[in-house]
Amino acid sequence: MQGVRPIDALVNSLSEARVVTDPDVIDSYARDRTFVAPGKPLGVVLAASRDDVVTTMKWASEHRVPVVPRGAGSGLAGGATAGDGAVVLSLARMTAIKELSPADEIAVVEPGVITADLDRAAREHGLMYAPDPSSYEISTIGGNLATNAGGLRCVKYGVTRDSALGLEVVLADGRVMNTGRRTMKGVTGYDLTGLFVGSEGTLGVITSATVRLRRAPAAPPATFAAEFGSLRDAGAAVSAIMAAGCQPSLMELLDRATLEAIDDWRNIGLEPATQAMLIGQSDAADGQAMIERMERLCTENGASFVAVSSSPAETEELIGLRRMAYQAKERLGACLVEDVCVPRSVLPDMISAIEAAGARHGVRICTVAHAGDGNLHPVFIFEHGTVEPPPEVWAAADEVFRHALELGGTLTGEHGVGVLKQRWLALESGPVATEVQRGIKAVFDPLGILNPGKAI
Amino acid sequence: MQGVRPIDALVNSLSEARVVTDPDVIDSYARDRTFVAPGKPLGVVLAASRDDVVTTMKWASEHRVPVVPRGAGSGLAGGATAGDGAVVLSLARMTAIKELSPADEIAVVEPGVITADLDRAAREHGLMYAPDPSSYEISTIGGNLATNAGGLRCVKYGVTRDSALGLEVVLADGRVMNTGRRTMKGVTGYDLTGLFVGSEGTLGVITSATVRLRRAPAAPPATFAAEFGSLRDAGAAVSAIMAAGCQPSLMELLDRATLEAIDDWRNIGLEPATQAMLIGQSDAADGQAMIERMERLCTENGASFVAVSSSPAETEELIGLRRMAYQAKERLGACLVEDVCVPRSVLPDMISAIEAAGARHGVRICTVAHAGDGNLHPVFIFEHGTVEPPPEVWAAADEVFRHALELGGTLTGEHGVGVLKQRWLALESGPVATEVQRGIKAVFDPLGILNPGKAI
Repeated sequence: MQGVRPIDALVNSLSEARVVTDPDVIDSYARDRTFVAPGKPLGVVLAASRDDVVTTMKWASEHRVPVVPRGAGSGLAGGATAGDGAVVLSLARMTAIKELSPADEIAVVEPGVITADLDRAAREHGLMYAPDPSSYEISTIGGNLATNAGGLRCVKYGVTRDSALGLEVVLADGRVMNTGRRTMKGVTGYDLTGLFVGSEGTLGVITSATVRLRRAPAAPPATFAAEFGSLRDAGAAVSAIMAAGCQPSLMELLDRATLEAIDDWRNIGLEPATQAMLIGQSDAADGQAMIERMERLCTENGASFVAVSSSPAETEELIGLRRMAYQAKERLGACLVEDVCVPRSVLPDMISAIEAAGARHGVRICTVAHAGDGNLHPVFIFEHGTVEPPPEVWAAADEVFRHALELGGTLTGEHGVGVLKQRWLALESGPVATEVQRGIKAVFDPLGILNPGKAI
Repeated sequence: MQGVRPIDALVNSLSEARVVTDPDVIDSYARDRTFVAPGKPLGVVLAASRDDVVTTMKWASEHRVPVVPRGAGSGLAGGATAGDGAVVLSLARMTAIKELSPADEIAVVEPGVITADLDRAAREHGLMYAPDPSSYEISTIGGNLATNAGGLRCVKYGVTRDSALGLEVVLADGRVMNTGRRTMKGVTGYDLTGLFVGSEGTLGVITSATVRLRRAPAAPPATFAAEFGSLRDAGAAVSAIMAAGCQPSLMELLDRATLEAIDDWRNIGLEPATQAMLIGQSDAADGQAMIERMERLCTENGASFVAVSSSPAETEELIGLRRMAYQAKERLGACLVEDVCVPRSVLPDMISAIEAAGARHGVRICTVAHAGDGNLHPVFIFEHGTVEPPPEVWAAADEVFRHALELGGTLTGEHGVGVLKQRWLALESGPVATEVQRGIKAVFDPLGILNPGKAI
């Protein structure tokens, strides 16, 4: 059948409207929010149902075409980057919240549901969907599951995996598999749900998820922001707050470079001596008392100034500083957002190492940390308009990654491996785990067509 | 080498003291706490180090000898039952707490550490190890990990998997693999830690675990016990308490049959109209207020009587009722302890179905439930001294399992599949997940020597 491309068979077996073959549109679906350059995929399937996914995977298996599953494309590790000859499988149109049970505190959702939409739907019943990656107004539940997304609230409520109870997945050959359960506990068989969460679409395509909801806090959160003359004091305050059992629902640390970027933009009156700011919240019933306790612990650990919110408007102002951080950095240049995680006690050491790596390689690095989790986002800044990070940025990042591992940490706390961390992966995983993971991948995807080159 | 048994090579490569070949002693190591009859294993290796485990697995791979890993043998699903020609690999002597870091709230332990010992060690630093299966004074961390053990506190703190951060495991061929991390978050590669937890020793032998500790409550818990004239009222009270966000740290339901068994033994003055008792605790800072709120919710939902503890002694008395439950049943006969879990909202339906199954088959069944989780332990009672449960018990259990699945539940909330649930496994897992799990098993254990016939 000379001249007939395999994708025509797919187009015919779905319906024309569901497959995009316009090269410009394809290109926009072949990227995520990293600097990883995509190839030239064959097309984009905009799946509207599980059956579309089954049809696509059967076709892809038959023709041995790589498939790159995708939600909103808000990932930061190149996990959704599509290469030459691949088909992009977008789940963004599968947006149904199929069930929301207040009595059982669960929801059953399609993968394209926007994270914040599920949270809002839950709040109508006094519940919430806890995982809140910074992208949660645009990211999808499917993408969050694929990357095991974290967020600000996970210091109290855990990461996406902690909210995933069961999945429906389509395997590489088009078979449909159900994992997990609707119950809070269950130990029948291996934890396939947990295995899929964070697997970046390399094991199968999630077409439905049963997730756990939690009671939403009754009152608005109480908030503090504290300034410190040294990183070590700020780190000590974090340790003291966690050790006191204050259970913050948010605990963010901004370094001097980040504060300067914000001050540059919005003139927040940054004191010359301030080296770090800590912002904490409590959403507990006794939140105001907890925040006052955190305030005392900050002062006892050398804070030069602590503001405590007594109203939602003031809270917005304090939290606003954290929200401004990323935009403030984007004014300074192009940004490579990184994501190491270390044991909490060595957080100040890690920030010092980041500063040293920046100084050594002449790279401006601004760091924000989910301090309660030891999860740091050093942002490497380079010239606007540069297509990809220059060598000195990678050299500094390489130092940061290696130092995180030396401190007992990990390459990625919540963004994922994608293609961006492939170079460093073996340093953390070791040869046996690497081989075992390849073996697991082959069980699910013997032809290697599911998001090749990602995650492992 | 006629007459030389393969186990002699193992005995020689370890040291004589570490391998038990006395048949009587072997038999005691070939059982857990179920009615599953063991076979005649070749011997028992009492491992004292990771190297012993490596040596054993290399030998077992070479000679294709099945290996049954084992902690305290307190399991309730036959997961540690050893068959003919197997070698039992006991980890009970590996009892070192290698590290306990209050700053990072983690511990690194060998698998033979008794669960309650780790909890006590943590409490010296104001921390706790949260998972508390009823067996926690005798069970080991390794066994808890192998079964993903639950417990009373998991309604607030989650199951064993929620406390497991990283593992060192010895694979079937003797290779050593590290999984996971020391950090609170991390998404490098597939979740091998979660995969091992609950895999009942079928994928590898855990030789070290990094577990998460939590802040121990500052004050002793506050407690209530409420009596209800109907199961449905008790179920409604559970729902109301959970919906109100009271966050109980324990929430147990005892049915009429259980209360009768306790009354029979200890004469607790059981009222004829009482159909169920609910016992709840809060370990929160505002625990007393929370308990009073729970008390009100019980009263509003028809409780005929509610006692609230105002002292540790009274608390002990109320909780004592729950603790007595199992012993009270053992007086009545031999006990098959079951473990279904359903969505919380259908807990009363599940208890009614259990009662109906008992009535239909003429089997006395007493049920205790971790009500906040929807996890029920119906105990099937039959004649003392019977070697295994008679057919009518299995017929009633079969009905109970099928009904749990029909209600959207699972065969096992926290005890595991072992050999006991093999008959029903396919009903829950379905053919695709079953095949996939066999594929995963083959990646780790291509010769099928690790605890064959268990878990999947």
